[in-house]
Amino acid sequence: MAKPPIPANFVDVLKRPNPAVMATVRPDGTPVTVATWYLWDGGRILVNMDAGRKRLENIRANRRISLTVLDGDEWYRHVSMQGSATLEPDDGLTDIDRIAQHYTGKPYVNRRRPRINAWLDIDAYHVWGFRWSAA
Amino acid sequence: MAKPPIPANFVDVLKRPNPAVMATVRPDGTPVTVATWYLWDGGRILVNMDAGRKRLENIRANRRISLTVLDGDEWYRHVSMQGSATLEPDDGLTDIDRIAQHYTGKPYVNRRRPRINAWLDIDAYHVWGFRWSAA
Repeated sequence: MAKPPIPANFVDVLKRPNPAVMATVRPDGTPVTVATWYLWDGGRILVNMDAGRKRLENIRANRRISLTVLDGDEWYRHVSMQGSATLEPDDGLTDIDRIAQHYTGKPYVNRRRPRINAWLDIDAYHVWGFRWSAA
Repeated sequence: MAKPPIPANFVDVLKRPNPAVMATVRPDGTPVTVATWYLWDGGRILVNMDAGRKRLENIRANRRISLTVLDGDEWYRHVSMQGSATLEPDDGLTDIDRIAQHYTGKPYVNRRRPRINAWLDIDAYHVWGFRWSAA
Protein backbone atom coordinates (compact mmCIF):
# COMPACT_ATOMS: atom_id res chain seq x y z
CA MET A 1 0.00 0.00 0.00
CA ALA A 2 1.15 3.51 -0.81
CA LYS A 3 0.03 6.92 0.39
CA PRO A 4 -1.54 9.58 -1.84
CA PRO A 5 -1.10 11.60 -3.93
CA ILE A 6 -1.75 8.98 -6.62
CA PRO A 7 0.73 9.40 -9.53
CA ALA A 8 -0.60 11.05 -12.69
CA ASN A 9 -0.47 7.90 -14.85
CA PHE A 10 -2.80 6.11 -12.43
CA VAL A 11 -5.01 9.16 -12.10
CA ASP A 12 -5.43 8.90 -15.87
CA VAL A 13 -6.78 5.37 -15.33
CA LEU A 14 -9.16 6.65 -12.66
CA LYS A 15 -10.43 9.44 -14.91
CA ARG A 16 -11.77 6.97 -17.46
CA PRO A 17 -15.27 5.44 -17.13
CA ASN A 18 -13.84 2.12 -16.01
CA PRO A 19 -15.57 -0.80 -14.33
CA ALA A 20 -15.23 -0.73 -10.56
CA VAL A 21 -16.21 -2.69 -7.48
CA MET A 22 -16.71 -1.16 -4.05
CA ALA A 23 -16.70 -2.84 -0.66
CA THR A 24 -18.35 -1.86 2.58
CA VAL A 25 -18.31 -3.84 5.81
CA ARG A 26 -21.44 -5.06 7.58
CA PRO A 27 -21.68 -4.65 11.36
CA ASP A 28 -21.11 -8.45 11.66
CA GLY A 29 -17.70 -8.06 9.93
CA THR A 30 -18.73 -9.42 6.53
CA PRO A 31 -17.43 -7.43 3.55
CA VAL A 32 -19.99 -6.67 0.83
CA THR A 33 -18.82 -6.03 -2.74
CA VAL A 34 -20.88 -4.63 -5.63
CA ALA A 35 -20.14 -3.28 -9.10
CA THR A 36 -20.43 0.49 -9.18
CA TRP A 37 -19.96 3.61 -11.23
CA TYR A 38 -17.53 6.10 -9.76
CA LEU A 39 -16.08 9.49 -10.64
CA TRP A 40 -12.61 10.86 -9.93
CA ASP A 41 -13.17 14.41 -8.72
CA GLY A 42 -10.11 16.43 -7.77
CA GLY A 43 -8.36 13.87 -5.59
CA ARG A 44 -11.47 12.25 -4.16
CA ILE A 45 -13.66 9.46 -5.50
CA LEU A 46 -17.41 9.95 -5.77
CA VAL A 47 -19.83 7.03 -5.75
CA ASN A 48 -23.59 7.42 -5.67
CA MET A 49 -26.33 5.11 -4.41
CA ASP A 50 -30.09 4.82 -4.28
CA ALA A 51 -31.09 6.12 -0.84
CA GLY A 52 -32.56 2.70 0.02
CA ARG A 53 -29.35 0.73 -0.39
CA LYS A 54 -28.39 -1.51 2.49
CA ARG A 55 -24.73 -0.59 2.10
CA LEU A 56 -25.54 2.96 3.23
CA GLU A 57 -26.34 1.47 6.65
CA ASN A 58 -22.95 -0.25 6.55
CA ILE A 59 -21.19 3.06 5.81
CA ARG A 60 -23.10 4.85 8.59
CA ALA A 61 -21.80 2.24 11.04
CA ASN A 62 -18.28 2.00 9.52
CA ARG A 63 -17.12 4.74 7.15
CA ARG A 64 -14.24 2.63 5.80
CA ILE A 65 -14.68 1.60 2.17
CA SER A 66 -12.51 0.19 -0.59
CA LEU A 67 -12.77 0.61 -4.34
CA THR A 68 -11.04 -1.40 -7.08
CA VAL A 69 -10.97 0.13 -10.56
CA LEU A 70 -10.23 -2.31 -13.39
CA ASP A 71 -8.37 -0.93 -16.37
CA GLY A 72 -10.60 -1.56 -19.34
CA ASP A 73 -9.02 -3.89 -21.86
CA GLU A 74 -6.84 -5.74 -19.40
CA TRP A 75 -9.07 -6.17 -16.41
CA TYR A 76 -6.48 -7.76 -14.13
CA ARG A 77 -4.73 -4.38 -14.11
CA HIS A 78 -6.24 -2.48 -11.24
CA VAL A 79 -5.97 0.57 -9.04
CA SER A 80 -7.39 -0.09 -5.58
CA MET A 81 -8.01 2.51 -2.91
CA GLN A 82 -9.04 2.55 0.72
CA GLY A 83 -10.37 5.41 2.74
CA SER A 84 -13.25 6.93 4.65
CA ALA A 85 -16.57 7.89 3.12
CA THR A 86 -18.63 10.99 3.82
CA LEU A 87 -22.31 10.79 2.90
CA GLU A 88 -24.51 13.62 1.62
CA PRO A 89 -27.82 13.78 -0.24
CA ASP A 90 -27.54 14.19 -4.02
CA ASP A 91 -30.03 17.07 -4.18
CA GLY A 92 -31.55 17.43 -7.63
CA LEU A 93 -29.66 14.31 -8.77
CA THR A 94 -26.90 16.62 -9.95
CA ASP A 95 -24.09 14.23 -9.17
CA ILE A 96 -25.63 11.01 -10.47
CA ASP A 97 -26.25 12.94 -13.69
CA ARG A 98 -22.55 13.86 -13.85
CA ILE A 99 -21.65 10.22 -13.31
CA ALA A 100 -24.19 8.91 -15.82
CA GLN A 101 -22.94 11.43 -18.40
CA HIS A 102 -19.41 10.15 -17.81
CA TYR A 103 -20.40 6.52 -18.39
CA THR A 104 -23.32 6.73 -20.83
CA GLY A 105 -23.27 10.26 -22.29
CA LYS A 106 -26.80 10.87 -20.92
CA PRO A 107 -28.47 12.04 -17.68
CA TYR A 108 -29.52 9.35 -15.21
CA VAL A 109 -32.76 7.64 -16.24
CA ASN A 110 -34.58 7.08 -12.94
CA ARG A 111 -35.71 10.49 -11.58
CA ARG A 112 -38.12 9.15 -8.97
CA ARG A 113 -35.78 7.86 -6.25
CA PRO A 114 -33.61 9.97 -3.94
CA ARG A 115 -29.88 9.25 -4.08
CA ILE A 116 -26.92 9.64 -1.79
CA ASN A 117 -23.32 10.60 -2.56
CA ALA A 118 -20.44 8.89 -0.83
CA TRP A 119 -17.21 10.87 -1.08
CA LEU A 120 -14.15 8.72 -0.58
CA ASP A 121 -11.14 10.44 0.99
CA ILE A 122 -8.31 8.15 -0.08
CA ASP A 123 -5.67 7.34 2.51
CA ALA A 124 -3.98 4.40 0.80
CA TYR A 125 -3.81 2.89 -2.66
CA HIS A 126 -2.34 -0.11 -4.42
CA VAL A 127 -1.75 -0.82 -8.11
CA TRP A 128 -1.09 -4.09 -9.88
CA GLY A 129 -0.38 -5.31 -13.38
CA PHE A 130 0.81 -2.12 -15.02
CA ARG A 131 4.09 -2.22 -16.92
CA TRP A 132 5.26 0.82 -15.01
CA SER A 133 4.19 -0.45 -11.58
CA ALA A 134 6.10 -2.49 -9.07
CA ALA A 135 3.86 -5.56 -9.27
CA MET B 1 -29.41 -11.00 -0.68
CA ALA B 2 -30.52 -14.53 -1.48
CA LYS B 3 -29.47 -17.90 -0.12
CA PRO B 4 -27.78 -20.60 -2.21
CA PRO B 5 -28.11 -22.66 -4.29
CA ILE B 6 -27.31 -20.12 -6.99
CA PRO B 7 -29.63 -20.60 -10.02
CA ALA B 8 -28.13 -22.32 -13.07
CA ASN B 9 -28.14 -19.23 -15.30
CA PHE B 10 -25.96 -17.36 -12.80
CA VAL B 11 -23.75 -20.41 -12.27
CA ASP B 12 -23.12 -20.25 -16.03
CA VAL B 13 -21.80 -16.71 -15.50
CA LEU B 14 -19.57 -17.93 -12.68
CA LYS B 15 -18.19 -20.76 -14.79
CA ARG B 16 -16.70 -18.34 -17.32
CA PRO B 17 -13.21 -16.80 -16.84
CA ASN B 18 -14.71 -13.46 -15.86
CA PRO B 19 -13.08 -10.49 -14.16
CA ALA B 20 -13.64 -10.49 -10.41
CA VAL B 21 -12.82 -8.47 -7.33
CA MET B 22 -12.50 -9.92 -3.85
CA ALA B 23 -12.70 -8.17 -0.50
CA THR B 24 -11.23 -9.07 2.85
CA VAL B 25 -11.44 -7.00 6.03
CA ARG B 26 -8.41 -5.76 7.95
CA PRO B 27 -8.38 -6.05 11.73
CA ASP B 28 -8.96 -2.26 11.93
CA GLY B 29 -12.27 -2.71 10.03
CA THR B 30 -11.06 -1.42 6.65
CA PRO B 31 -12.19 -3.48 3.64
CA VAL B 32 -9.49 -4.30 1.09
CA THR B 33 -10.46 -5.01 -2.53
CA VAL B 34 -8.25 -6.47 -5.26
CA ALA B 35 -8.80 -7.91 -8.73
CA THR B 36 -8.51 -11.68 -8.72
CA TRP B 37 -8.87 -14.84 -10.74
CA TYR B 38 -11.38 -17.31 -9.33
CA LEU B 39 -12.78 -20.72 -10.21
CA TRP B 40 -16.29 -22.06 -9.66
CA ASP B 41 -15.79 -25.60 -8.34
CA GLY B 42 -18.91 -27.58 -7.53
CA GLY B 43 -20.77 -24.98 -5.50
CA ARG B 44 -17.74 -23.33 -3.94
CA ILE B 45 -15.47 -20.56 -5.22
CA LEU B 46 -11.71 -21.06 -5.27
CA VAL B 47 -9.30 -18.14 -5.17
CA ASN B 48 -5.54 -18.52 -4.87
CA MET B 49 -2.87 -16.18 -3.53
CA ASP B 50 0.87 -15.90 -3.20
CA ALA B 51 1.68 -17.11 0.32
CA GLY B 52 3.11 -13.69 1.19
CA ARG B 53 -0.07 -11.73 0.55
CA LYS B 54 -1.20 -9.41 3.33
CA ARG B 55 -4.81 -10.36 2.75
CA LEU B 56 -4.07 -13.87 4.02
CA GLU B 57 -3.48 -12.31 7.43
CA ASN B 58 -6.84 -10.59 7.11
CA ILE B 59 -8.56 -13.91 6.34
CA ARG B 60 -6.82 -15.65 9.25
CA ALA B 61 -8.24 -12.97 11.58
CA ASN B 62 -11.66 -12.78 9.87
CA ARG B 63 -12.72 -15.54 7.49
CA ARG B 64 -15.51 -13.49 5.94
CA ILE B 65 -14.86 -12.56 2.32
CA SER B 66 -16.88 -11.21 -0.58
CA LEU B 67 -16.42 -11.69 -4.31
CA THR B 68 -18.00 -9.75 -7.17
CA VAL B 69 -17.88 -11.36 -10.61
CA LEU B 70 -18.46 -8.97 -13.53
CA ASP B 71 -20.14 -10.42 -16.58
CA GLY B 72 -17.75 -9.88 -19.44
CA ASP B 73 -19.18 -7.64 -22.11
CA GLU B 74 -21.49 -5.72 -19.81
CA TRP B 75 -19.44 -5.21 -16.70
CA TYR B 76 -22.15 -3.56 -14.62
CA ARG B 77 -23.91 -6.92 -14.60
CA HIS B 78 -22.56 -8.76 -11.62
CA VAL B 79 -22.96 -11.76 -9.37
CA SER B 80 -21.73 -11.02 -5.84
CA MET B 81 -21.24 -13.57 -3.09
CA GLN B 82 -20.42 -13.53 0.60
CA GLY B 83 -19.22 -16.34 2.75
CA SER B 84 -16.45 -17.82 4.84
CA ALA B 85 -13.05 -18.80 3.52
CA THR B 86 -11.03 -21.89 4.39
CA LEU B 87 -7.29 -21.70 3.68
CA GLU B 88 -5.03 -24.54 2.57
CA PRO B 89 -1.63 -24.76 0.90
CA ASP B 90 -1.70 -25.25 -2.87
CA ASP B 91 0.79 -28.12 -2.83
CA GLY B 92 2.50 -28.58 -6.19
CA LEU B 93 0.70 -25.48 -7.48
CA THR B 94 -2.01 -27.81 -8.78
CA ASP B 95 -4.86 -25.40 -8.19
CA ILE B 96 -3.23 -22.21 -9.49
CA ASP B 97 -2.45 -24.22 -12.62
CA ARG B 98 -6.14 -25.15 -12.96
CA ILE B 99 -7.07 -21.49 -12.56
CA ALA B 100 -4.37 -20.23 -14.94
CA GLN B 101 -5.48 -22.81 -17.53
CA HIS B 102 -9.04 -21.53 -17.17
CA TYR B 103 -8.01 -17.90 -17.78
CA THR B 104 -4.97 -18.17 -20.04
CA GLY B 105 -4.92 -21.71 -21.44
CA LYS B 106 -1.50 -22.30 -19.86
CA PRO B 107 -0.03 -23.40 -16.51
CA TYR B 108 0.90 -20.68 -14.04
CA VAL B 109 4.19 -18.99 -14.92
CA ASN B 110 5.84 -18.35 -11.54
CA ARG B 111 6.86 -21.72 -10.03
CA ARG B 112 9.14 -20.34 -7.32
CA ARG B 113 6.66 -18.96 -4.79
CA PRO B 114 4.36 -21.03 -2.55
CA ARG B 115 0.66 -20.31 -2.92
CA ILE B 116 -2.44 -20.66 -0.77
CA ASN B 117 -5.99 -21.64 -1.72
CA ALA B 118 -8.96 -19.90 -0.18
CA TRP B 119 -12.18 -21.89 -0.58
CA LEU B 120 -15.26 -19.72 -0.28
CA ASP B 121 -18.36 -21.39 1.14
CA ILE B 122 -21.11 -19.12 -0.13
CA ASP B 123 -23.87 -18.27 2.30
CA ALA B 124 -25.47 -15.36 0.45
CA TYR B 125 -25.46 -13.94 -3.06
CA HIS B 126 -26.84 -10.98 -4.97
CA VAL B 127 -27.22 -10.36 -8.70
CA TRP B 128 -27.78 -7.13 -10.58
CA GLY B 129 -28.30 -5.97 -14.13
CA PHE B 130 -29.37 -9.22 -15.77
CA ARG B 131 -32.54 -9.15 -17.86
CA TRP B 132 -33.80 -12.16 -15.93
CA SER B 133 -32.93 -10.77 -12.49
CA ALA B 134 -34.99 -8.64 -10.16
CA ALA B 135 -32.76 -5.57 -10.37
